[in-house]
Amino acid sequence: MKVPNIQLLLTGDELMAGDIVDSNSAMVAQQLKELGLKIARKVTVPDNLTLLVNEINDMTHTADILIINGGLGPTVDDLTAQALSNATRLPLTQHPKALIHLKAWCKKRGMQLNEPNLKQTILPQGCHIIDNKCGSAVGFYINHQNCDIYCTPGVPHELKAMLDEQIKPAISRSVPSELKNHVTRLQVFGLGESTLQKLINEKLPNWPTNIELGFRSGSPLLEVKLTTQSEQAYQQKQLWLTKLSGLLGDHLLGQIKNKPLSLAEYVLNELQKQQLKITTAESCTGGLIASMLTQISGCSQNFEVGFVTYSNEIKNTVLDVSKQTLEKYGAVSEETVLAMAHGALNKSQADIVIAVTGIAGPEGGTKEKPVGMVWLAWGTIQNLKTQCLYIPLNRKYFQKYTSSIALDLIRRYLLNSKEIANYITERNGFKYKK
Amino acid sequence: MKVPNIQLLLTGDELMAGDIVDSNSAMVAQQLKELGLKIARKVTVPDNLTLLVNEINDMTHTADILIINGGLGPTVDDLTAQALSNATRLPLTQHPKALIHLKAWCKKRGMQLNEPNLKQTILPQGCHIIDNKCGSAVGFYINHQNCDIYCTPGVPHELKAMLDEQIKPAISRSVPSELKNHVTRLQVFGLGESTLQKLINEKLPNWPTNIELGFRSGSPLLEVKLTTQSEQAYQQKQLWLTKLSGLLGDHLLGQIKNKPLSLAEYVLNELQKQQLKITTAESCTGGLIASMLTQISGCSQNFEVGFVTYSNEIKNTVLDVSKQTLEKYGAVSEETVLAMAHGALNKSQADIVIAVTGIAGPEGGTKEKPVGMVWLAWGTIQNLKTQCLYIPLNRKYFQKYTSSIALDLIRRYLLNSKEIANYITERNGFKYKK
Repeated sequence: MKVPNIQLLLTGDELMAGDIVDSNSAMVAQQLKELGLKIARKVTVPDNLTLLVNEINDMTHTADILIINGGLGPTVDDLTAQALSNATRLPLTQHPKALIHLKAWCKKRGMQLNEPNLKQTILPQGCHIIDNKCGSAVGFYINHQNCDIYCTPGVPHELKAMLDEQIKPAISRSVPSELKNHVTRLQVFGLGESTLQKLINEKLPNWPTNIELGFRSGSPLLEVKLTTQSEQAYQQKQLWLTKLSGLLGDHLLGQIKNKPLSLAEYVLNELQKQQLKITTAESCTGGLIASMLTQISGCSQNFEVGFVTYSNEIKNTVLDVSKQTLEKYGAVSEETVLAMAHGALNKSQADIVIAVTGIAGPEGGTKEKPVGMVWLAWGTIQNLKTQCLYIPLNRKYFQKYTSSIALDLIRRYLLNSKEIANYITERNGFKYKK
Repeated sequence: MKVPNIQLLLTGDELMAGDIVDSNSAMVAQQLKELGLKIARKVTVPDNLTLLVNEINDMTHTADILIINGGLGPTVDDLTAQALSNATRLPLTQHPKALIHLKAWCKKRGMQLNEPNLKQTILPQGCHIIDNKCGSAVGFYINHQNCDIYCTPGVPHELKAMLDEQIKPAISRSVPSELKNHVTRLQVFGLGESTLQKLINEKLPNWPTNIELGFRSGSPLLEVKLTTQSEQAYQQKQLWLTKLSGLLGDHLLGQIKNKPLSLAEYVLNELQKQQLKITTAESCTGGLIASMLTQISGCSQNFEVGFVTYSNEIKNTVLDVSKQTLEKYGAVSEETVLAMAHGALNKSQADIVIAVTGIAGPEGGTKEKPVGMVWLAWGTIQNLKTQCLYIPLNRKYFQKYTSSIALDLIRRYLLNSKEIANYITERNGFKYKK
């Protein structure tokens, strides 16, 4: 039994005009993925009869399954039934089941069945109705030239109900069990796509071809995906997963179980395990670290207070950074970041701190302290670590990446990691230190 | 001069697997719309060389312009250059300009140029480089069989910069001027799409059909677009723009000149004009307001310090909210939010404050103070205003929307607005007040 070639045809002027972002095809893909299936090709066209008929003719030649989405509504620009009729040469007639559905649907809503609605009952002769529990438009199914064609509504929740309850089970029955995919997904921080690819090329040159590797950079986290389709590959996977994990070291945050976690979630989980409270003292990241932590529900157990201290004077009055330190070493210095860390720990009574001061730019850089230079201090009062990094990205990405690094430094601290993170090797800013 | 047939080819396993929702094609469509152009057809395929080559061959037969998106990265699954080479029979060679770009890009980031990255310089012979200001992958342009082919990166902000600065101007030169649209774009906060549509239907029922109205909700801002295609419509537009502006009142932030502004930018511009300093005291928004302000370069002139005070004790020790107030009225109360505002003003010496305390959920709600209830206080020490709102959205959207409202309240305060914002009418939480 071969893997069916599945194609997706989307229709709608609104999809072409950029007025809406198409989330339906991702939904279809995810549902199929659960069956171990993939969409081979996806075509989107405006509401134009000639274009639709052409695509249907083309696609039914190469596809085993064709899912058509959109164009089932009551208005003149809804053309799917007509296009199917033209392509299959099946005449349009009123489908009795569709009429029953529509009458019931209108009655339930206390509405009169009107002429435009009746159009939704006129379908290619002999098609099978796919019930729509959430809307007026029924879907329908035709087999044409050995291609299974499913016509579905464009409204996302109507499509979802149809996929869940009718189309997915129908397709599933035609898929051999040995085809179903096994996917393992890892979350990685601190290694870029190309660096990791290079590492794998060098250190694991015999990576087996039947364990498909995929990368997705998700700013800040990189997702690494291992996909196997055969039983044999699946058996091998554990071994290669172990090798890859060894290569990743502490850059590996974890394996995705149900849903991906954020860096802040990894940090908060560890803080909770160790029953520690954290505080933040932010200058150039301007509250983003605090915001990343407080996005997580229940964070208050481990995060009570954060300080956004932007000006020198405030670093002095709010965090007790001495004026001498600020004058002598400047706001972006190891001395100042350490003083900020001490200040935040004192004011908060937290166990652990992350302090950040740097030059986010685009203004404010000097030759000695260029835009992108940042000092971080983190740890407990007994064991504060510091690091200077050089991150010359634009302001937005500087803030995002620096905040992510800050959280990752805390994560590594909590894990008692002895490894040096790749971003420290790559972006070491000590050369800029006075 | 005929309207060019423009087609879009997207490549990426992640687009087929449903791991991400494709927002790039909507972005391309919107940019083209501003030139009065539409995408005629859109095809999406996985990272598979044969499929890519087939589609390129097919599409160049019918398209005048083909935009290819994705597949320019450093990893083995990035195949666009190879596919173009196969389709056009132009051999792959190292492009000197691409190498210069990549070297400069790595140098700027203090990174080593590695082997996978070098792959990004190997391009079809004779192609023209499209510079990438934000990433390592350059784009490139080829004319093949009278079809203009633009190859662009999949990373949205890289694509956007390329479209804005290079591809749109290039395509624009080939479009007859009578096809070009005139577009006016407004930024609105506090009115939803359907509320505004209803308002327009009621108050401006004779809205002319040749001034096309478009809405794009951009969380938090709504963009309202007025498009005219004829000279006559353009003449009428000013009148209807005035009428619409009157209807929007202070919900209208401004007209987009060069690029859209964020709410924080509107606030900071006004603070700068009035030479005022602001401080923040955040509980449930957890630093997001501070972060929104500090995303803007130069904010330090008007924002020196923000406090993220999550626990009761910290509200007391850091912001001097009295224990009696916290015990008697609770952390989410008018009394506490006022005390937070006073505390932040005292500690910061700022002129103006925004303080927020509420229940972001999903935990922590009670019958009297449900999840989504939030108290805000804002203004100067002599004139502090308060408002209770009820925003029962999920945690992420609660934080985002509440922070946006906080900034908008400051904006209206600085403008001395007498109007009541729609969100106060709609989400008034006073009924939950003790």
